[in-house]
Amino acid sequence: MEELATEKEAEESHRQDSVSLLTFILLLTLTILTIWLFKHGRVRFLHETGLAMIYGLIVGVILRYGTPATSGHDKSLSCTQEDRAFSTLLVTFDPEVFFNILLPPIIFHAGYSLKKRHFFRNLGSILAYAFLGTAVSCFIIGNLMYGVVKLMKIVGQLSDKFYYTDCLFFGAIISATDPVTVLAIFNELHADVDLYALLFGESVLNDAVAIVLSSSIVAYQPAGLNTHAFDAAAFFKSVGIFLGIFSGSFTMGAVTGVVTALVTKFTKLHCFPLLETALFFLMSWSTFLLAEACGFTGVVAVLFCGITQAHYTYNNLSVESRSRTKQLFEVLHFLAENFIFSYMGLALFTFQKHVFSPIFIIGAFVAIFLGRAAHIYPLSFFLNLGRRHKIGWNFQHMMMFSGLRGAMAFALAIRDTASYARQMMFTTTLLIVFFTVWIIGGGTTPMLSWLNIRVGVDPDQDPPPSNDRNRTKQESAWIFRLWYSFDHNYLKPILTHSGPPLTTTLPTWCGLLARCLTSPQVYDNQEPLREEDSDFILTEGDLTLTYGDSTVTANGSSGSHTASTSLEGSRRTKSSSEEVLERDLGMGDQKVSSRGTRLVFPLEDNF
Amino acid sequence: MEELATEKEAEESHRQDSVSLLTFILLLTLTILTIWLFKHGRVRFLHETGLAMIYGLIVGVILRYGTPATSGHDKSLSCTQEDRAFSTLLVTFDPEVFFNILLPPIIFHAGYSLKKRHFFRNLGSILAYAFLGTAVSCFIIGNLMYGVVKLMKIVGQLSDKFYYTDCLFFGAIISATDPVTVLAIFNELHADVDLYALLFGESVLNDAVAIVLSSSIVAYQPAGLNTHAFDAAAFFKSVGIFLGIFSGSFTMGAVTGVVTALVTKFTKLHCFPLLETALFFLMSWSTFLLAEACGFTGVVAVLFCGITQAHYTYNNLSVESRSRTKQLFEVLHFLAENFIFSYMGLALFTFQKHVFSPIFIIGAFVAIFLGRAAHIYPLSFFLNLGRRHKIGWNFQHMMMFSGLRGAMAFALAIRDTASYARQMMFTTTLLIVFFTVWIIGGGTTPMLSWLNIRVGVDPDQDPPPSNDRNRTKQESAWIFRLWYSFDHNYLKPILTHSGPPLTTTLPTWCGLLARCLTSPQVYDNQEPLREEDSDFILTEGDLTLTYGDSTVTANGSSGSHTASTSLEGSRRTKSSSEEVLERDLGMGDQKVSSRGTRLVFPLEDNF
Repeated sequence: MEELATEKEAEESHRQDSVSLLTFILLLTLTILTIWLFKHGRVRFLHETGLAMIYGLIVGVILRYGTPATSGHDKSLSCTQEDRAFSTLLVTFDPEVFFNILLPPIIFHAGYSLKKRHFFRNLGSILAYAFLGTAVSCFIIGNLMYGVVKLMKIVGQLSDKFYYTDCLFFGAIISATDPVTVLAIFNELHADVDLYALLFGESVLNDAVAIVLSSSIVAYQPAGLNTHAFDAAAFFKSVGIFLGIFSGSFTMGAVTGVVTALVTKFTKLHCFPLLETALFFLMSWSTFLLAEACGFTGVVAVLFCGITQAHYTYNNLSVESRSRTKQLFEVLHFLAENFIFSYMGLALFTFQKHVFSPIFIIGAFVAIFLGRAAHIYPLSFFLNLGRRHKIGWNFQHMMMFSGLRGAMAFALAIRDTASYARQMMFTTTLLIVFFTVWIIGGGTTPMLSWLNIRVGVDPDQDPPPSNDRNRTKQESAWIFRLWYSFDHNYLKPILTHSGPPLTTTLPTWCGLLARCLTSPQVYDNQEPLREEDSDFILTEGDLTLTYGDSTVTANGSSGSHTASTSLEGSRRTKSSSEEVLERDLGMGDQKVSSRGTRLVFPLEDNF
Repeated sequence: MEELATEKEAEESHRQDSVSLLTFILLLTLTILTIWLFKHGRVRFLHETGLAMIYGLIVGVILRYGTPATSGHDKSLSCTQEDRAFSTLLVTFDPEVFFNILLPPIIFHAGYSLKKRHFFRNLGSILAYAFLGTAVSCFIIGNLMYGVVKLMKIVGQLSDKFYYTDCLFFGAIISATDPVTVLAIFNELHADVDLYALLFGESVLNDAVAIVLSSSIVAYQPAGLNTHAFDAAAFFKSVGIFLGIFSGSFTMGAVTGVVTALVTKFTKLHCFPLLETALFFLMSWSTFLLAEACGFTGVVAVLFCGITQAHYTYNNLSVESRSRTKQLFEVLHFLAENFIFSYMGLALFTFQKHVFSPIFIIGAFVAIFLGRAAHIYPLSFFLNLGRRHKIGWNFQHMMMFSGLRGAMAFALAIRDTASYARQMMFTTTLLIVFFTVWIIGGGTTPMLSWLNIRVGVDPDQDPPPSNDRNRTKQESAWIFRLWYSFDHNYLKPILTHSGPPLTTTLPTWCGLLARCLTSPQVYDNQEPLREEDSDFILTEGDLTLTYGDSTVTANGSSGSHTASTSLEGSRRTKSSSEEVLERDLGMGDQKVSSRGTRLVFPLEDNF
């Protein structure tokens, strides 16, 4: 009998889980249909994520206030049952679900769909914004919030404990920007590509930084419970943990990517796109699990795995697998993202332990504004000292404006809502996400025109002439040039079917190894079209390194880039138009800089 | 402190989960690489599922026997930790995971990828094999096993309880055939299409029948604990439950499919394939959840949803969405299936509560053989009385041979392993799956040639002349003709962009409604190519119904089918070659039968 009872209970809970999931699926379906209506009507002020949030909010309001009011006395039984079902709506999703199931595809997709060309051109600035900027922002927000907390204690609005490390933790989770709305609009309006790269790169990397930063702060906490005294040992331990986790996760991601590249290079799975796609998916997923199993951060590993996969493995895939993998992760990303945003909307009214503290909330809004300002403007100033293409004031204002918070901040906040302080943070984070997604999402288009940022940019055009063109290549970052040539001469030939043959780049005593590793490329000469295709994506103008003269000649021989384009133009397929576009842009940059020097590295341009 | 301890524990369990999943992912990766090697070498005797099972088995053996032997005394700490990690390998996966996560994509894919033309031509026989056949097989196996159990009690091999309903339950779970291996080989060798349709249709539907049958038997059990006495009320209750669950699940699946078709018809999402694919995915998933939430069987609902989606929604999708949805479910299906088979391999050595009973196992092998024989031969005899194209002896032998058991039998067996009887069933099921997958998988190719079944069939060819052609159309199932004309004249025009306009098929007083529902088709005339495309897939030769004369003329005018093929040949794209093939086959059949009658229904042929 008891067994039967537990079986019934299990059945009931299973049914409730189904109802919860079903609610979310219907929410997403509604969102999709409304997005379609919006896209049909070319509405731009509200992004799909904002919409998902609104629908979640509406359902949340209905669940919270609607159900008891609408149901009469006669339906009391069915109503309580329904209530019970809906109260499980939030319980069904363990916060870990966000980290283990929903975030990985989002982050992987970000890495995989990264527009490498513009990303790498601005890598220095992006790294500075993501690492230094996030740290600065975290520190400033943390300290400001500590002031707010002190104030609350004086006013008598705060009874429970709220440590300095809690404030820093809040600074860390709220520093992760997520300009999904902004970038969607940028994409649609064809806004300036460098600004796009800066914003995208920063937001992708600062997610990773925020995760690692927040877990380092948590690790700092137990050692320094009396947080007023600064514990140098614990601080350095935290810094060590940060560096350890970050580099460990980075290595895991990169290594899995490299292994996948090698596997796809040497087993030619081209004829079996299903196998290839499945392998790609499994290897990418295993990165996440591997990192988690080793105590690193899976999400960070997945990001770097995505970047590596896009940089190397992508070139080894068959044409069909390329579109398959892209589409697969696109769908997963879309579903996961909209799910998170509906969940956020729902959580505002159905989460049980909200702590609304007006002072804290107002303080937080001020703090994130100041934190963002202290991060963007000074860093841009320093970066402009080294950059050839300055980051203009309008770009800086736009970056300042685009600091909206999204899925990552929410996922970090919901991960632990046990203590009073954490609940307050969660509520505040939720409100910040709502506010920034709606206001910034709606304000992007007006802001772009107000700041005079170029839209409808034809990427084939030359970039607008910057003020000082008389700098020489010595100014550019030699370390990236080094990496670039190493990547081009050794990594790409080893890991993919492109680049110069290893037999020419490796020293003679490595002859055997070189021939062994280069061999598939030689076999591949039977299919020249594919080779050509991968060149399109891979070389990115770095032909200058090996075949420098011919490229310079091609660029020099014509004002526009028709000469270099027509070189392989006859073999070009429609699907590679994006790559063509990227390549042409690369050539454009080169040409501009080649007025000063003869042999140029495309990377040095915008550091 | 306590909080810290539980946090550490949670972290540890999370890490173990990661390791478990990682093990499976590595297993799948290994499987994929080996499949590639096999396909490369054109090895056919071992299917990927058999391979996945072998790898699972090897890892299971290593985990069971390898780990204590290889680890020295000095590594005892890490070893026990590892042991603990691996013992969770099976615990990690709740049996419900199979039903809620792994089976739905497999079953949906089966429904979605169903070759409609051949399936519907043989629908009568398929339904008979699936419903009657599975019931017969279940009953016979159940009774034989009851005899075996009695014998075991006499011999003293069985101490615990083993009821008659347990035996029937075993009959139900082991009656679900899964000829994934056979069909893969059929596909590769282009074996006879009708045999393929019969096997595929039977195995897809009998999965559904087995699920519902087994849960009806479980529902029967509590009422009749004293199972020796036949309880008529409980029996009819079980039958009622069977019919209720089956029809409810069927309705759910069909309704969700129809809703999706309507949504995709009226919102023209063509320009946004991502939205379309996401919507399709969500709606299909919601079927499963909806059915589970209502107490029906999600897997069965998903099957019929897949069939409906393929029949209606598919035609409303854009070309890109078609390939996207197909590829998405193909990948999911592939991963889920191989996961289940690796898991099976692993379970043989790592499952803790195996009950190996030689008598039961031998008895089960004999029983499934006899059950399959009692199911195939008599049914085929009766079906042949009504069929124009007889199911020959070689087909019957092949169907008899192809009764291998797979994922569904395993999933049903692992769902409940609490009692001694269920544990014995689980062990036996596992062995039966292993044996049949390997032996039958390896024996299919020799068996095909031994039974003189046509391979390398060119589907354009006429089917071989059967013995009695002098029957008239009255013999064919009028109910299917009725359904077919209803489907063609009303459902397809309402739900898709094809078929005759409703204004011509509906009575005049429905004029307004008809115009309202037909309107998108009229708008669609702007894109004639797409219309043509959907015609390729949809009409399946049922043009005879509305434009009968012209089709008959086309068929009559030429010995081969070049006339009808060339009608739209100029607009044909490469991707629709499969549909072309199906259509041509349809025409072929029609021509053969049109010697007797002038206006023919393609469906009546092979019932």
